Amino acid sequence: MNKTLLVKMMLLVSLLLTSLGFSGSAYANDGKKYRWRLAETWGPNFPIFGEASKNMAKMVKEMSNGRFTIRIDSANKHKSALGIFDFVKSGQYQMGHSASYYWKGKDFNTQFFTTIPFGMIASERHAWFYYGGGMELMKKVYDQYGIMSFPGGNTGNQMAGWFKKEINSVEDLQGLKIRIPGFAGEVLAKLGAKPTNIPSGELYTALERNTIDAVEWVGPSLDLRMGFHKIAPYYYTGWHEPGAELQFMVNQKAYDSLPKDLQVILTVAMKAAAYDMYAQSMHVSAENLASLKKEYPDIKIRSFPKSVMNVIKKTNDELLTEFANKDPMTAEILQSLKDYKSQIRTWTDLSERAYLDNFDE
Amino acid sequence: MNKTLLVKMMLLVSLLLTSLGFSGSAYANDGKKYRWRLAETWGPNFPIFGEASKNMAKMVKEMSNGRFTIRIDSANKHKSALGIFDFVKSGQYQMGHSASYYWKGKDFNTQFFTTIPFGMIASERHAWFYYGGGMELMKKVYDQYGIMSFPGGNTGNQMAGWFKKEINSVEDLQGLKIRIPGFAGEVLAKLGAKPTNIPSGELYTALERNTIDAVEWVGPSLDLRMGFHKIAPYYYTGWHEPGAELQFMVNQKAYDSLPKDLQVILTVAMKAAAYDMYAQSMHVSAENLASLKKEYPDIKIRSFPKSVMNVIKKTNDELLTEFANKDPMTAEILQSLKDYKSQIRTWTDLSERAYLDNFDE
Repeated sequence: MNKTLLVKMMLLVSLLLTSLGFSGSAYANDGKKYRWRLAETWGPNFPIFGEASKNMAKMVKEMSNGRFTIRIDSANKHKSALGIFDFVKSGQYQMGHSASYYWKGKDFNTQFFTTIPFGMIASERHAWFYYGGGMELMKKVYDQYGIMSFPGGNTGNQMAGWFKKEINSVEDLQGLKIRIPGFAGEVLAKLGAKPTNIPSGELYTALERNTIDAVEWVGPSLDLRMGFHKIAPYYYTGWHEPGAELQFMVNQKAYDSLPKDLQVILTVAMKAAAYDMYAQSMHVSAENLASLKKEYPDIKIRSFPKSVMNVIKKTNDELLTEFANKDPMTAEILQSLKDYKSQIRTWTDLSERAYLDNFDE
Repeated sequence: MNKTLLVKMMLLVSLLLTSLGFSGSAYANDGKKYRWRLAETWGPNFPIFGEASKNMAKMVKEMSNGRFTIRIDSANKHKSALGIFDFVKSGQYQMGHSASYYWKGKDFNTQFFTTIPFGMIASERHAWFYYGGGMELMKKVYDQYGIMSFPGGNTGNQMAGWFKKEINSVEDLQGLKIRIPGFAGEVLAKLGAKPTNIPSGELYTALERNTIDAVEWVGPSLDLRMGFHKIAPYYYTGWHEPGAELQFMVNQKAYDSLPKDLQVILTVAMKAAAYDMYAQSMHVSAENLASLKKEYPDIKIRSFPKSVMNVIKKTNDELLTEFANKDPMTAEILQSLKDYKSQIRTWTDLSERAYLDNFDE
């Protein structure tokens, strides 16, 4: 090929590329295809939680026109439901879908980004994350591990669980064998309850055989498939996870290696999928609650009496103070959560709560 | 150029394109740049509402890597705040940002997609739109006009307004001159009030000079800049717009002309921006309410007494029945809203309301 022809050819190729929308560095489509993998805590076809990551991956694929795809591995595949943090930290998986409070053994401060007892409801927590400094605090905690953390879908206020007997006084908590994980379990333990952790597959039998007296799960959206309503007649309203937000995790280096447009596509898809999960949780909870009430009219829905709640709340506050005294970062997060809740709850009370309380039939 | 060389060149170009991610029709990047225009009802730099469309356009631009940009024209530019429906229908603008209830003069059934008195709160309405058939009903109404309609951001429960005098009985509504638009105005008119429509720029003076006795606007997120709190001491909680959702509109033909990836990018960006607006409304409302309480401690926050609300509610129900009897489509929409609210409110009451009522300090 002679030199003139080569120049002509390069010109032709360059014209072609320009006409196709390429204009050098201004166009971030580097022609590469990105094939990522996401490890999730949930089993395959897990409702609602599992749909959030599928929705996210679908949006990413369609918005990137197939340049960026994310394969989802459920717990049956990667065999480590609670190994997601390490998977994403090491880069073995570029992404994870789980819940931040599962990592309190890795870093104590991660747990506050899911929910805390007597904390904010979903709408308040979203305002805190995106407009009240929550994302910045979460970044501060997760930056140390090369992990980016994002909201991953809200369950709404969870139910306190299925109880075989009514709770009428603090004494009724004495010796109560209850499946309730995390922070709330610590609070109840301080009051004499015996929180136990039992694999989910064995919970029904444990409850049936009185190995446990009560079980906290999620709420009508996911409880019914567990069958607890067939053997425990008291369904208690929640105080311990008022707006639990799941979590998308992204390996920082993997993220940095993406072209800018795919970074934004990923971020927006995670956000939309997370918001959608709250709407879906609301929808499925309402549907399942209606069929529960119809098919099991003897189920008794209760709230802990005020006297019990006051003691639980006091114990919870003491635990939070203990935590805050341990570590300045914990103190900073808890102060932010407390101040923000106090300010936004005044508005929630005046807007949606006043409406529900005063104008509801 | 001889034939062999031409074949070689075409092969080279084709290889180059493939390596850059092009693979014929599977790749929707047609190389075109899409330059759209959006007309919004709001003035330039209007807080919160105006930020929703800016956020949407920013996401679209970044996710499409500049292939798709949307210029926003505010009301000062297009001179027709309530002309958005016609702009989008005709294709003069490819998009609009407004509120569906402004178009009830065009099609009576459009108004129900924003909010109705005693209707659903934001979280319930989102569930209805995305999981309860709301989007499908909205499509049925808007398809007739070649317009696609999408949620465009929720204000949260709006306040009933600023009143110069307390409302203690239905008699106090007699002759009450109040700025309150739409459906709620019709309800109050049936009870003897005199709803008036006054341009926003003249509202403060009208209230100050007693041309009107009360003014409904939005809530703390947008009311403070209007200054009503300086001249009307009673701030009433809302019943009339419990979860008003603004609206993105897209011209159907313009949408159809987009490659598939840009269609999804647009849809996801609208959804994320709309959800974000609710979080921002919560945040700004809480902030402004705090400063209102601090700087104007004499403001009295009230709810209409139950006796008044019952009469308002009865009148509202009568109006809804009248509407439903007029037109089968109206009946279908109102039935869907009613059934869905009834089912999901049972869950809201059990989850977030029970939490706020029982466990709040």
